[in-house]
Amino acid sequence: MCCFWLILLIALASTLNSVCAYEPNWKSLDTRPLPAWYDEAKFGIFCHWGVFSVPAFKADWFWYFWKGPTPDPEILKFMEKNYKPGFSYGDFAPLFTAELFDPTTFAKIVKSSGAKYYVPTSKHCEGFTNWPSAYSWNWNAVDVGPHRDLIGELREAILDIGGVHFGFYFSQYEWFNRLYWTDKAANFSSQTYVNEVSYPQMVELVNNYKPDILWSDGDWEAADTYWNSERFLAWLFTDSPVAKNIVVNDRWGAGLTGKHGSFYSFSDHFDPGHIVPHKWENCMMLDKNNWMTSRTMTAADVHTLNELITQLARTISCNGNLLLNAGATHDGRIIPIFEERLNEVGAWLAVNGEAVYKTKPWIHQNDSNVWSVSVISRFVRNRKGLKDTVGWPWGHGGVK
Amino acid sequence: MCCFWLILLIALASTLNSVCAYEPNWKSLDTRPLPAWYDEAKFGIFCHWGVFSVPAFKADWFWYFWKGPTPDPEILKFMEKNYKPGFSYGDFAPLFTAELFDPTTFAKIVKSSGAKYYVPTSKHCEGFTNWPSAYSWNWNAVDVGPHRDLIGELREAILDIGGVHFGFYFSQYEWFNRLYWTDKAANFSSQTYVNEVSYPQMVELVNNYKPDILWSDGDWEAADTYWNSERFLAWLFTDSPVAKNIVVNDRWGAGLTGKHGSFYSFSDHFDPGHIVPHKWENCMMLDKNNWMTSRTMTAADVHTLNELITQLARTISCNGNLLLNAGATHDGRIIPIFEERLNEVGAWLAVNGEAVYKTKPWIHQNDSNVWSVSVISRFVRNRKGLKDTVGWPWGHGGVK
Amino acid sequence: MCCFWLILLIALASTLNSVCAYEPNWKSLDTRPLPAWYDEAKFGIFCHWGVFSVPAFKADWFWYFWKGPTPDPEILKFMEKNYKPGFSYGDFAPLFTAELFDPTTFAKIVKSSGAKYYVPTSKHCEGFTNWPSAYSWNWNAVDVGPHRDLIGELREAILDIGGVHFGFYFSQYEWFNRLYWTDKAANFSSQTYVNEVSYPQMVELVNNYKPDILWSDGDWEAADTYWNSERFLAWLFTDSPVAKNIVVNDRWGAGLTGKHGSFYSFSDHFDPGHIVPHKWENCMMLDKNNWMTSRTMTAADVHTLNELITQLARTISCNGNLLLNAGATHDGRIIPIFEERLNEVGAWLAVNGEAVYKTKPWIHQNDSNVWSVSVISRFVRNRKGLKDTVGWPWGHGGVK
Amino acid sequence: MCCFWLILLIALASTLNSVCAYEPNWKSLDTRPLPAWYDEAKFGIFCHWGVFSVPAFKADWFWYFWKGPTPDPEILKFMEKNYKPGFSYGDFAPLFTAELFDPTTFAKIVKSSGAKYYVPTSKHCEGFTNWPSAYSWNWNAVDVGPHRDLIGELREAILDIGGVHFGFYFSQYEWFNRLYWTDKAANFSSQTYVNEVSYPQMVELVNNYKPDILWSDGDWEAADTYWNSERFLAWLFTDSPVAKNIVVNDRWGAGLTGKHGSFYSFSDHFDPGHIVPHKWENCMMLDKNNWMTSRTMTAADVHTLNELITQLARTISCNGNLLLNAGATHDGRIIPIFEERLNEVGAWLAVNGEAVYKTKPWIHQNDSNVWSVSVISRFVRNRKGLKDTVGWPWGHGGVK
Repeated sequence: MCCFWLILLIALASTLNSVCAYEPNWKSLDTRPLPAWYDEAKFGIFCHWGVFSVPAFKADWFWYFWKGPTPDPEILKFMEKNYKPGFSYGDFAPLFTAELFDPTTFAKIVKSSGAKYYVPTSKHCEGFTNWPSAYSWNWNAVDVGPHRDLIGELREAILDIGGVHFGFYFSQYEWFNRLYWTDKAANFSSQTYVNEVSYPQMVELVNNYKPDILWSDGDWEAADTYWNSERFLAWLFTDSPVAKNIVVNDRWGAGLTGKHGSFYSFSDHFDPGHIVPHKWENCMMLDKNNWMTSRTMTAADVHTLNELITQLARTISCNGNLLLNAGATHDGRIIPIFEERLNEVGAWLAVNGEAVYKTKPWIHQNDSNVWSVSVISRFVRNRKGLKDTVGWPWGHGGVK
Repeated sequence: MCCFWLILLIALASTLNSVCAYEPNWKSLDTRPLPAWYDEAKFGIFCHWGVFSVPAFKADWFWYFWKGPTPDPEILKFMEKNYKPGFSYGDFAPLFTAELFDPTTFAKIVKSSGAKYYVPTSKHCEGFTNWPSAYSWNWNAVDVGPHRDLIGELREAILDIGGVHFGFYFSQYEWFNRLYWTDKAANFSSQTYVNEVSYPQMVELVNNYKPDILWSDGDWEAADTYWNSERFLAWLFTDSPVAKNIVVNDRWGAGLTGKHGSFYSFSDHFDPGHIVPHKWENCMMLDKNNWMTSRTMTAADVHTLNELITQLARTISCNGNLLLNAGATHDGRIIPIFEERLNEVGAWLAVNGEAVYKTKPWIHQNDSNVWSVSVISRFVRNRKGLKDTVGWPWGHGGVK
Repeated sequence: MCCFWLILLIALASTLNSVCAYEPNWKSLDTRPLPAWYDEAKFGIFCHWGVFSVPAFKADWFWYFWKGPTPDPEILKFMEKNYKPGFSYGDFAPLFTAELFDPTTFAKIVKSSGAKYYVPTSKHCEGFTNWPSAYSWNWNAVDVGPHRDLIGELREAILDIGGVHFGFYFSQYEWFNRLYWTDKAANFSSQTYVNEVSYPQMVELVNNYKPDILWSDGDWEAADTYWNSERFLAWLFTDSPVAKNIVVNDRWGAGLTGKHGSFYSFSDHFDPGHIVPHKWENCMMLDKNNWMTSRTMTAADVHTLNELITQLARTISCNGNLLLNAGATHDGRIIPIFEERLNEVGAWLAVNGEAVYKTKPWIHQNDSNVWSVSVISRFVRNRKGLKDTVGWPWGHGGVK
Repeated sequence: MCCFWLILLIALASTLNSVCAYEPNWKSLDTRPLPAWYDEAKFGIFCHWGVFSVPAFKADWFWYFWKGPTPDPEILKFMEKNYKPGFSYGDFAPLFTAELFDPTTFAKIVKSSGAKYYVPTSKHCEGFTNWPSAYSWNWNAVDVGPHRDLIGELREAILDIGGVHFGFYFSQYEWFNRLYWTDKAANFSSQTYVNEVSYPQMVELVNNYKPDILWSDGDWEAADTYWNSERFLAWLFTDSPVAKNIVVNDRWGAGLTGKHGSFYSFSDHFDPGHIVPHKWENCMMLDKNNWMTSRTMTAADVHTLNELITQLARTISCNGNLLLNAGATHDGRIIPIFEERLNEVGAWLAVNGEAVYKTKPWIHQNDSNVWSVSVISRFVRNRKGLKDTVGWPWGHGGVK
């Protein structure tokens, strides 16, 4: 009898959303269930946008390939040819103008793609924060360049349009931050950078922008203990204002990829070809060669609709979500060919969405070149009993 | 004996090409036959590129809509928001950087579209010359901005790639040239502007770049007598280095549209829907709203492949050529969505070119929604006798 | 009877001012008397200001020393170090901002120096016109850069403050004008540049700004017949709106220096040390090394008050006027050390002006190191009889 | 045995330099004697230089007067007129080019003025650090703008030229640093800004540039306990590499002016007119109106030599040192009128230095308009006995 009440109580308690107090250790953190919305969403849009969008040449890692340990000769030549001697990466910031940026346009394009979540870069490894961070003075989108709170405006537009979750990418490290250098030179025995930059920035972001996704990156040079990852996630999952709905990926320290996190992102463009039991995500690019919107992109560089739908099918059939990147330009636009592809995916999903959203992977993911999923979620929701597998209308090679 | 006649025949034949001395009056000029290459070509690419590509906002007529008689409120607002007070159109010129411009890339895109001629703007109504004109000092692409001879480089790349004719657009008038203003204020009784700017520029262009097309524009405010059009064309058709192959359109003075010229261009986007006996041209835009490559273009603004092929069919069935515009950006690129459309048209022409190039209009252009042409040229070439009409595989509504 | 003579006298007198119709030949032109104001003025301020004020490095001849036949290694290095490759002289124009330019401030500084005329550069050999010339489209101070009519504003401020005559410097040639090059390449047998640029510009300037001085320069590569100097001066002295008061210097064609003109300017910094019968002018610089306001000027480069007064004494004692140059900066200022020197000269003239203005050279210019003048003009004015020579209170070495 | 004495000797010797271990409280800190060099020096040069040197309009407090609680209408108008809307203070940084900066030239000008110490701004209240601070990433002179370590280069040039001590100004607070705002909003109960910015920056500066002066400023909004001033000074005077020679002023917390410090600076332009027992300093400006080098400075704004020498006499007669400010320009120059004044002061000191350097105030500072000092220091040095007072050769009104 007592037992019954106890069970009831526990059930009620867990219902209350946030009561679970996670401890700052992976064992405890790993017990947190995946918020349901994420698995049901299946498809999200990634957006790389930052100071690298100004040169928009070669890669979002422009700065690193320019001033890092092994400079790229093409970047060196590009700088020599087009900028005055001594021009620094910091000098690009005022040219990040975003004068044509209309967050509602971004939200409409995301919405029309059929995506259910949106993940712009809040801070790339360049350290420039797309929100007015107190921990990145004069190196953020309000103090210089756009003079706007890009993250805040995008969030508001996404929430206004409805039906799309909002989160952001965040780079733990910053290639050239002198505080990080100092910590690194000390073999990460000091944590000045973490204490003064990365950790307070994440707290600031979560408190101010209440994301549903926090997509961590740039963690790989140092252990989770350096980043204080367990402490942060315990706070995030327990006491933060987004404890209930937030999902995070698995990049929280060297060697931890695929071990912890709401979903695993493994390496970029992860595509196992078979089911992976823990929820995972395949982040891929619209431009085959670039996360940022490159000015030297050609038509042939952009994935075809066929390729995109195929990848979506392969991914969700194997228990993944697809996070498709469509970067923005320095002047604040999503270029027409990206918009067109996203529209086309959206048109396809408008017809075939039943076989995508809220589905569960079938036991055989790839049956004679047909990637398949079952619509369990839909069943549960509809209380109609188990439906037949909804097979994908194409084979391994993509849409016919 | 036979030999004598042969020599005479050769002499006569060569006369037919270059000897004809046209007089500076329309009656004489109108007797010049259309060089055959133009009718056979059917399909060309237009390219609007200039200082207007820097703001790339609203229209290539940006300057006119900004500082002309009835300013566009959106342009006024755009300037107020994004530039310091007093910023002038001339100040845009150093921002016309063209740093990524590779003429070979342009030539490849043009070639791959299946087009047989290329017509970039040598000088738009803004007066900025894309070649180093002696008559436009410090207001040309070598003295400021790109610091390159854009026309010269494009010409060379087009000739190198082969199979594509090269010409250019040239605006007779310049909206804000003070010399033109003075002439206009005198009701065009003075010709200072023509004598010091437009006329010597055309001569300079023809002598230096030997075009196959001279696409005149901006003529409409003044009579042909003001522009010295008859004198110019007599020289062009008789004594210029391109007397043999050059084609010109019909914009040579107020009220002359559709009256003289190798081909008629009438108004922009001309599409009569029935045969027009004199060779004509339909110049249309890839972006439905813009000749220049606009930064606010959306995916929906770009004509679909279906629309383009339909327009090509309608046009050539009615004795026109299609001149499809794909403008370039301030930094010297053809954007991916334009490249993709041109590639797609090219792919279609690679299969269906037989029904396009060197064809003649059929007596019924539009038979139950099928636009048709006859392949007379091919017949003559092949000496096989008259072939059946090659019907177009689609109806009025476009590709099925 | 008396009346008759009076009327005749009046008729003759009026003839003397404006009726004289000069013919376009030096013999006739040389008969024109020097307008009295110029000799009485003694002291004027020169002002070099133009696009060269942007780099403000090395010399006002920056462009020529950079891109001319023998490039200056220091300028090459300066450009390599501080500008992106390919940066052209034309690209400097939008940086000629003049945002702090207040013409009234200029006029006050000129006035307080005791100078009686002001000669800013209307167009330097760079060709950039400081007024909105119809013959220099987009290469003038209204179309780009300051976006103001610098000559017009300076003229108005000088006339408003009163007591100072206004004129301007004008360069006949332009180092890099392609039209001039063409004429030069033809050994000046063609006159396209003169007909389309220099001549109409002078007419435009005279008609619009009614100067009292036209200070010609840049004439030396071609004969006066190329420049149409005789024709121009005949018009200027006879039919122009300034026929009465205008004075010109002697730079009107190769080999003509010191032969014709209201006053002779000979070479720059001319200082003969003895009387020269024809009125002449010593144009000298405040900065010993530069006509423009150089950014690398040091305190030691600036002439001391002692040196300036000495030079003034030497000059007017020998029948010259002193034209002292104080250039302006790219942002529209006269720098404090120039202002201070001019103030100091003005303070000296406020005390000693009686021995300067309206004086005539004494028969012995330099008597035991005292440069002397006689005050004939003052006598005539005061009708008091011939006064003694007013000796200068310093010797050859300058102010004690 | 010998060994014992040796060790003792070493222990004693080391005591002489640095052994005095000051405790982090004012009582202990106040016991530190003034390093002799400072009182003997008498005359130093101050140099305000920073991002404010770019607009160079109104004041070095440009940012505060623009965006602070009571915006200056002139600054608002200046920005509206000359910059595009939204232009931020951070956008000025890349325009702080310093391309003409030659530290040796600066050192020569300082040396020739007769000054014995040089105090450039290491960081003004704008927060931009003129050295590559790890605590001000992308908001310092190496990451953006000059791309040079201005403090490092100036220090090296000053030490190379010899005879001049080097130190720097440092602003404790930063007007718009969000971390400071947060602390301030918490009534300075939190110290995030101090712990993460101001304190580590001072340590970084002292360790890297080993100054002889640390001129603190911007302390007045918060108590010394907020700034950790006692802790810092205890370290500075005891354990820092400059413990022996460093002098500091008195701006170490609200209400502390004139209470602690090697010398008192009281308010700017302090000039008591009577002896002040504790060593003090009169920091004054060459431009009467501005610490920075203002572009709108006129000749009348600059103190005359007479005024400067008078102020020097009044100051050192009353036990003060004179710190005369000559700011630098955005392009890295000391303007000629400043150079000239400093040269003139130097010329005067070259003759009269015996009455200035190493003197002691006389018991009567101002005896019938003659400001007097005694040359005690010189006496002590020369071991010749007390010399008579060396009277200053001018009265209260300054140099005659």
